Amino acid sequence: MNNLTMDKIVNLCKNRGFVFPGSEIYGGFANTWDFGPVGVELKNNIKRAWWKRFVQEDPNTYGVDAAILMNPKVWEASGHVASFGDPKMDCKKCKQRFRADTLVENHSKGSVSAEAMSNEELESYIQTHHICCPHCGGFDWTAIRKFNPMFITSRGTLEADADKVYLRPETCQGEYVNFLNVQRTTRAKVPFAIAQIGKSFRNEITPGNFLFRTIEFEQMELQMFCKEDSSMNIYNQYKERALQFVKDLGLKEENLRFHDHDKLAHYAKAACDIQYNFPIGWQELNGIHHRSTWDLSRHQEFSGKNMQYVDPFTNEKYIPNVIEYSIGADRLTLALLCQAYDEESLENGETRVVMHFHPAIAPYKVCVLPLQKNLSEKAKEVYSLLSKEFMCDYDEAGSIGKRYRRQDEIGTPFCVTIDFDTLENNTVTIRERDSMEQIRLNINDLIDFISKKIKFN
Amino acid sequence: MNNLTMDKIVNLCKNRGFVFPGSEIYGGFANTWDFGPVGVELKNNIKRAWWKRFVQEDPNTYGVDAAILMNPKVWEASGHVASFGDPKMDCKKCKQRFRADTLVENHSKGSVSAEAMSNEELESYIQTHHICCPHCGGFDWTAIRKFNPMFITSRGTLEADADKVYLRPETCQGEYVNFLNVQRTTRAKVPFAIAQIGKSFRNEITPGNFLFRTIEFEQMELQMFCKEDSSMNIYNQYKERALQFVKDLGLKEENLRFHDHDKLAHYAKAACDIQYNFPIGWQELNGIHHRSTWDLSRHQEFSGKNMQYVDPFTNEKYIPNVIEYSIGADRLTLALLCQAYDEESLENGETRVVMHFHPAIAPYKVCVLPLQKNLSEKAKEVYSLLSKEFMCDYDEAGSIGKRYRRQDEIGTPFCVTIDFDTLENNTVTIRERDSMEQIRLNINDLIDFISKKIKFN
Repeated sequence: MNNLTMDKIVNLCKNRGFVFPGSEIYGGFANTWDFGPVGVELKNNIKRAWWKRFVQEDPNTYGVDAAILMNPKVWEASGHVASFGDPKMDCKKCKQRFRADTLVENHSKGSVSAEAMSNEELESYIQTHHICCPHCGGFDWTAIRKFNPMFITSRGTLEADADKVYLRPETCQGEYVNFLNVQRTTRAKVPFAIAQIGKSFRNEITPGNFLFRTIEFEQMELQMFCKEDSSMNIYNQYKERALQFVKDLGLKEENLRFHDHDKLAHYAKAACDIQYNFPIGWQELNGIHHRSTWDLSRHQEFSGKNMQYVDPFTNEKYIPNVIEYSIGADRLTLALLCQAYDEESLENGETRVVMHFHPAIAPYKVCVLPLQKNLSEKAKEVYSLLSKEFMCDYDEAGSIGKRYRRQDEIGTPFCVTIDFDTLENNTVTIRERDSMEQIRLNINDLIDFISKKIKFN
Repeated sequence: MNNLTMDKIVNLCKNRGFVFPGSEIYGGFANTWDFGPVGVELKNNIKRAWWKRFVQEDPNTYGVDAAILMNPKVWEASGHVASFGDPKMDCKKCKQRFRADTLVENHSKGSVSAEAMSNEELESYIQTHHICCPHCGGFDWTAIRKFNPMFITSRGTLEADADKVYLRPETCQGEYVNFLNVQRTTRAKVPFAIAQIGKSFRNEITPGNFLFRTIEFEQMELQMFCKEDSSMNIYNQYKERALQFVKDLGLKEENLRFHDHDKLAHYAKAACDIQYNFPIGWQELNGIHHRSTWDLSRHQEFSGKNMQYVDPFTNEKYIPNVIEYSIGADRLTLALLCQAYDEESLENGETRVVMHFHPAIAPYKVCVLPLQKNLSEKAKEVYSLLSKEFMCDYDEAGSIGKRYRRQDEIGTPFCVTIDFDTLENNTVTIRERDSMEQIRLNINDLIDFISKKIKFN
């Protein structure tokens, strides 16, 4: 829908049970959200669709589910611990965050050794030289802060002897540390991927924009281990597969675009995002990164374990390159909520709000409605039958038209109405959400009919 | 299997890709475990079976997925923050943990006011009066420690202004704080339940026994909100439903028993566990608790929000009672691994290790095996067909017998063998794991055949 605002989505989510503010009765808790009865189904369906496409249907991909709390050395190897001390400042105008030393170095074109400067010296230099925000051109900086992107907690019994532990800021380390375990137990041959869906935590302070940026979020990602000579090919394949996936789920082509990174990490060979045209503008939806041998090499260095793969045919030993494909489950849920939202003008002058979800991700596949309350016994029978196969809703309150509207607003693709003919001949009316067309079906054919329509292939 | 040891299960899990030690290349990280390629499928299938039974098929139960990081006031209301200061000591012999003040109070039969005593005074009293461990009778205590059962982290941008945040030690608070949100958006009528599957974190120091006790663990639980007069009935119903569920998943009746709690929390009206006969003995598998109006009343008190339910027919206003049913996904996975494990003596004198999982929870539903490598093209075709529907494995390495054994060890219920007849008449051999019986089927009938066998009803 054009002119869709984030507020509209947030309100629908709160009112229909997709997403509630976290800890709402206590005034909320910044940038946390709780998925409600229909939201949890939507998100789980999205996760299932991703797993089906990238793990179940791919003979060269293996899933894992690694612990959130990892040995702290993992974060030394990944570089997260070292970057703790970086002097960061925020542009108050556009809310972007920058490293103060990088601002100074870029401005001075390397003539000043920013690394050796204290925070006070950096701040003073930036003020004196009127260094503006590279993003918006503004000149309104916060003070320098030692921003800690990882949540830190401690393990151990006594507060005194407690050891620092981090909440993982990314899930991919779970694949790297298990590279050899997975290869050994599956006898996988390079190229192969390890995939994971799991929660990560980041101590974000920038505005959240609903599900777009939250302090805890769920990543769906895979790390493809490959030989260097095929790695760019594989990188390009995942760009296409990643795009195809979100299109198949319902995101429209005109709202999607690739965005190559301007600046690469020193070890990276290529990196791009797929962006989606959110109500807040074009923003990153997922990333595909060519990470070279960086991750496994670092873990070899820090763990002392040999992370080489041995080719079973040639006996060649090498550390594989890694192509990473990562997409946020919450962010994709938000994109799909935005894409699905529609307000249709009906012939009678009314407006119907309808969520055009792909049936595979719709929270409920079907709602069972008795035309009148005295048909509820038969309706409950049908509900029992269908709920063995699908998530179903049941509604006997209000007029049929009102009940259809309620299902439209949560994106239920089918409504099954039980009427007096049902008692006579075992048939029901089944109404499709988008076309609002109704056909008559025998109850015995319902499961088959619906099963075929809700597949994600 | 009799004489099953935990070591046997741990080794099978490591060798076949069910579960690896967390951060293993760094020497592990105490009481964390990573689920490998077959483990993640097993656990996800268990979670799906639970959700299907208790959410999908139950018209009065609604799911949520609440944030792990909650407003800290939640943990004041729950009582977790207040219990931080409890003086705890461990019996070095049996590793059980006790409150030192309770030990003194019970021993003195209330004649001493333990609450007013310092830690030194408590320790000295316990030594002087030779107070033994109530569990094992030993007299070998650690010093008193201020044991903190919750992981604490901090939120905020500067280390200075950081606020304390807790990793939730239980998921159920996500249901309590959303009680009104869920009721409002679903228009549910009491009695109804809110269910959730999610991770919790506890700073455990007692021995872990593999997946039995871990510092992060996944709970599957629901909170049933009901009127007081029907609450004991509902409590008893959930005892039966909880037992039926684990029996249907494959736990044997002789390894299951109810265990009523000797001591109830002051607010509780009834509480029991279902215990399973693990290789480490009878231990808690899940709990069913009658929590009265405690939880919602506390949240009403601490949040200032009216947590009353209004009966739409009678207009009666009241705070519902809560029946809690909670089971650990990791612990149930461990029980099902133990129950499934078997070593069978074959006629040829060999031993086969086989995991007798219920087909609904088996990691792979089917493995496709080309009899010879030159049949792999056809075999991959069949794999592609089946992997659209189920998690499938593919194996072309080694003799057929060896490949069958590998699938037996990960509990794959069906093996499909492609031979030269397949090319002629489109039929395959399908071999069943437990009976090892083989039948011949047309490829077009495979999906139907397997689909019917792997249902969880």
